[in-house]
Amino acid sequence: MARQVTGPEIERLIQVMAKLPGLGPRSARRAALHLIKNRDKLMGPLATALAEAHRKAALCSICGNIDTCDPCTICLDPRRDRGIICVVEEVGDLWALERSGALSCLYHVLGGTLSAIGGLRPEDLNIDGLIRRAADPQTREILLALNATVEGQTTAHYIAERLAGLEVQISRLAHGVPVGGELDYLDEGTLAAAVKARRPV
Amino acid sequence: MARQVTGPEIERLIQVMAKLPGLGPRSARRAALHLIKNRDKLMGPLATALAEAHRKAALCSICGNIDTCDPCTICLDPRRDRGIICVVEEVGDLWALERSGALSCLYHVLGGTLSAIGGLRPEDLNIDGLIRRAADPQTREILLALNATVEGQTTAHYIAERLAGLEVQISRLAHGVPVGGELDYLDEGTLAAAVKARRPV
Repeated sequence: MARQVTGPEIERLIQVMAKLPGLGPRSARRAALHLIKNRDKLMGPLATALAEAHRKAALCSICGNIDTCDPCTICLDPRRDRGIICVVEEVGDLWALERSGALSCLYHVLGGTLSAIGGLRPEDLNIDGLIRRAADPQTREILLALNATVEGQTTAHYIAERLAGLEVQISRLAHGVPVGGELDYLDEGTLAAAVKARRPV
Repeated sequence: MARQVTGPEIERLIQVMAKLPGLGPRSARRAALHLIKNRDKLMGPLATALAEAHRKAALCSICGNIDTCDPCTICLDPRRDRGIICVVEEVGDLWALERSGALSCLYHVLGGTLSAIGGLRPEDLNIDGLIRRAADPQTREILLALNATVEGQTTAHYIAERLAGLEVQISRLAHGVPVGGELDYLDEGTLAAAVKARRPV
């Protein structure tokens, strides 16, 4: 910025907020101003919430979920079906599946996908931990809920191969038309998959 | 949320972040996750920046700008033309004009506009302070840089009437500001052009 418009502490706040996903420099300025204008109703609570989350947030040593206890709430939940482990790339995917309410199982967060370009190798992902969990006699099914991208599917194949010797069912999410989706806007790959996996009505 | 996915401190952080302008529930979750994943590089600095800004941010008692000192950096700047006072609705507008680099003057932040619906009356805005500043012999010009909305223009008229008896030139931004547009959303070039072509009322 050419000229100093406001104090260094406020500029600093704007700079840090601009690094959040979904906020650019302009919206970070708006958000910072909104915070300052709502000092007690918003800025104070956010500072407290951040400090609390910073102090408490931890990776679950079993599944890789982010929670405020280790093992996480999901791993400790006795009402879940402990025979199914749903494998996801990132914690955000786990949260998305939980919001769908379609599953009541355990999870395993890989922390990324195999990638020649990004340089992630099998040992960089939490795959050995998954193999150990899959070998547990109570585990019946491993659901590979990875993104339908080249990296996600490569990783799924790699994991399926590693699990081949074990007595577990390996499954993956169905491909098809998203609920609420319009055919005209879908790519050919999705349409082809939906046609191939068609079901009797 | 139907089910508890993560710890209460993290849920709380997501809830507070969702109140920021530009972030909805979904992007707040993404941002919170991004923060937690970048604990030391981002979450710590943001907590510190917030606490610092919370401690230091103050309204300038002269012009209503938000800064970390009172009077603010702009009011104290000896290189500015103290004969011109640019009147704006909100602090965000002041910052936007400063970014345009078209002015090197003093400012006056009203804190809103007159509004029959919102219930803001002249005494709710910082108008008396403006009249006092306009009566200062060193003040030559009052530039009404209000939004080109009905409320902004109503407020501009009201202020122009209140200033009528004083020995100051009253000006407004040139048309060039799109009707219905808000200053904070405009690009610097448009703002600079509008400042340069300002006209007597």
